[in-house]
Amino acid sequence: MHNSDLMDKIVSLCKRRGFIFQSSEIYGGLANAWDYGPFGAELKRNLKNCWWKSNVSERDDMVGLDAAILMHPNTWKASGHAENFTDLLVDDKKTKKRFRVDHLSPEEQAKIGTQYTEPREFNLMLKTRLGAVEDTSSDVFLRPETAQGIFVNFKNILDSTSRRLPFGIAQIGKSFRNEITAGNFVFRMREFEQMEIEYFTTAEDSDACYEEWINRRFNWYTEHGIRKENLKLRKHDDDELAHYAKGCTDVEYQFPFGWSELEGIANRTDYDLKQHAELSGKDLRYHNKITNERFYPYVIEPSGGVDRAALAFLVDAYHEEEVDGRSRVVLKLHKDLAPTKVAVLPLLKKNADIVSMAQSIKTDLQKSLTCVYDDSAAIGKLYRRQDEVGTFFCVTVDVESLDDKQVTVRDRDTMGQQRVPVENLKRYIQDQLS
Amino acid sequence: MHNSDLMDKIVSLCKRRGFIFQSSEIYGGLANAWDYGPFGAELKRNLKNCWWKSNVSERDDMVGLDAAILMHPNTWKASGHAENFTDLLVDDKKTKKRFRVDHLSPEEQAKIGTQYTEPREFNLMLKTRLGAVEDTSSDVFLRPETAQGIFVNFKNILDSTSRRLPFGIAQIGKSFRNEITAGNFVFRMREFEQMEIEYFTTAEDSDACYEEWINRRFNWYTEHGIRKENLKLRKHDDDELAHYAKGCTDVEYQFPFGWSELEGIANRTDYDLKQHAELSGKDLRYHNKITNERFYPYVIEPSGGVDRAALAFLVDAYHEEEVDGRSRVVLKLHKDLAPTKVAVLPLLKKNADIVSMAQSIKTDLQKSLTCVYDDSAAIGKLYRRQDEVGTFFCVTVDVESLDDKQVTVRDRDTMGQQRVPVENLKRYIQDQLS
Repeated sequence: MHNSDLMDKIVSLCKRRGFIFQSSEIYGGLANAWDYGPFGAELKRNLKNCWWKSNVSERDDMVGLDAAILMHPNTWKASGHAENFTDLLVDDKKTKKRFRVDHLSPEEQAKIGTQYTEPREFNLMLKTRLGAVEDTSSDVFLRPETAQGIFVNFKNILDSTSRRLPFGIAQIGKSFRNEITAGNFVFRMREFEQMEIEYFTTAEDSDACYEEWINRRFNWYTEHGIRKENLKLRKHDDDELAHYAKGCTDVEYQFPFGWSELEGIANRTDYDLKQHAELSGKDLRYHNKITNERFYPYVIEPSGGVDRAALAFLVDAYHEEEVDGRSRVVLKLHKDLAPTKVAVLPLLKKNADIVSMAQSIKTDLQKSLTCVYDDSAAIGKLYRRQDEVGTFFCVTVDVESLDDKQVTVRDRDTMGQQRVPVENLKRYIQDQLS
Repeated sequence: MHNSDLMDKIVSLCKRRGFIFQSSEIYGGLANAWDYGPFGAELKRNLKNCWWKSNVSERDDMVGLDAAILMHPNTWKASGHAENFTDLLVDDKKTKKRFRVDHLSPEEQAKIGTQYTEPREFNLMLKTRLGAVEDTSSDVFLRPETAQGIFVNFKNILDSTSRRLPFGIAQIGKSFRNEITAGNFVFRMREFEQMEIEYFTTAEDSDACYEEWINRRFNWYTEHGIRKENLKLRKHDDDELAHYAKGCTDVEYQFPFGWSELEGIANRTDYDLKQHAELSGKDLRYHNKITNERFYPYVIEPSGGVDRAALAFLVDAYHEEEVDGRSRVVLKLHKDLAPTKVAVLPLLKKNADIVSMAQSIKTDLQKSLTCVYDDSAAIGKLYRRQDEVGTFFCVTVDVESLDDKQVTVRDRDTMGQQRVPVENLKRYIQDQLS
């Protein structure tokens, strides 16, 4: 399959089956904004819950945070965003279109001054204004990253949790960037969701810690179903690094539009905390109560995008197979990510006993698992419809079920079917899913 | 306890134990913005998950949605927010302070023209600007409610899910309002999180459906631990209703600062869909395929605030008790809301065998439950520390545990203790929690 075909198919499936819609579509859409429909909302919830479980709940050395999108403007002075979070742009004098200088070819760049205007800095932060009174109201920015919410809360978290190094703070939330070249579906949007960790350690341990997090984050994607051959690590060259950073490595995924960043893992040294300490005048040093040393810890930052991870999981899960001479589209999503775990299907939708049995099975299962009930087509078609949205199991209730109290459980990936007694069904499914 | 004392105690507990911090506090804070610390982030996650489970996962007639905060500006023309989502404000000519006219007493209102300026409309939506090219860039608004994201996606959801009436669409997400009189901790913030449902039904069934949702939403709060005597329903008077609304009832909670709205349930008739259909020129009618009728369904909207619900749960859970002549502060949070389910405590933190046993218990439990390990104080103090953050169970490993392979499980609310074999511990706790 051509890569552009694959991307088209995924965008089309996402719309048709309710994963992702163009935002405000009835008004012609808002450029590069997307809404998650019923299946997409569940996929995204599952993805974020998996990340939280792996990185917070199951670890001894992590805590969570949920900071506001709107922050004090000094935050962005300290972080450097107010001054440096800019793209260098030129205008085409004829077409009036605007371009990023670093996206022009060397030939095009040579035309700066003739075809293009002189480059100008353009800050990528979205600005708004709070408060009603004109003279005291203030410009504030929508955060361009969640990370700074962690740094400004570092002291409060230290004081309230008595954490000892090394430890990390994790956060999931929306960020906003006024990208000039947004695009590629949900890969690059102006409004997007991040899952970020700031892991605090000593300068001495920071190199080893950096390597550990690179491996851990790479493995997280493969453990959740991404094929290893579609992932790679890309170490940043020295000239790509921010001046304060000691190292940065991207986890890249082979999207239909090319290898692109899923997540970056950086050793940010003690830059951020020092910057905030200097501008705020607050002592943000860590206090080692055993040695009585006070110092600024180093920070390892694994920073991933929720939306691009969702896209990677969708792309990687998408399969077209030939079954009995017909094409089957199946989303082989990891069990923890699949939006629906079980579809309960009555073989005969007009048989009241079958319907009643199927509905009671669904009512029981949905206390602990995401379930749907579907009677909108013949069984073969229902299977295909569930395959297409990645439903892990189909449970079919047929006439025989009324006698033998057994149902047919069909596996999404193997299409293998098995008769399971209704009384064991919940345990059977839970065992398969755990 | 005086109510203002209670509120002070809760704000103080929230900061001291890492539930809620003032946003950007190191820079003097951002007015009426708050960040959720480690325990607060878990509480809020639990609260949202409980809501999603009750209103989406466990129901047959609901689907989820996760729409963007930034929407096409026409959305707010159709909804009426562009024109009508305003406060009428006056300025005090001397002090230059600004007030909402409806917050002035009749005596103060009589001074409009003398002490105060003439009232002016002030739109509460926060505005920002997207795009780099000046002449094509556009003003967009941060959504003041999540509801409109549901209405503009109504057709896409109908088309992709084949839902039949009655059914609902549920969404959780941030909204923004430039409130003049924000305040009361997280009760009224300029950035806040909503959990909203739009439940679509026929005009004929809408009254009964409205009553059902009022009861269902009232009960949701009591089922999650709010005492009934601290909740009441307040039916809006006819002159409070929006011109299109057929009815609206608030679920109010008795906060320390008075009875205030937790959630509103409204019968919005077919107003919203019709407005969007008219402005977009799209046919947003529901098609009943059996009768072949096409019509605009009525909408029942239960709209709650995540932050004010979190505050209500905290306030209601806060207890001070006298135990053995000492004061005990305990957050009696519902088991599904408690940020931490289990604290594992080694009785002797220098006994390597006890520590090893305690850590292995924690590692095992945290695969399915939120756990902490704490050895920072003597056992009595550790119990109090866990009570104060609402930890459901404390599991203590002592010298005897090494011999008899049993641990002490202490219940937060009764303080009753029980010896439980380690091999049964997980099941024991899970049974108590389910």
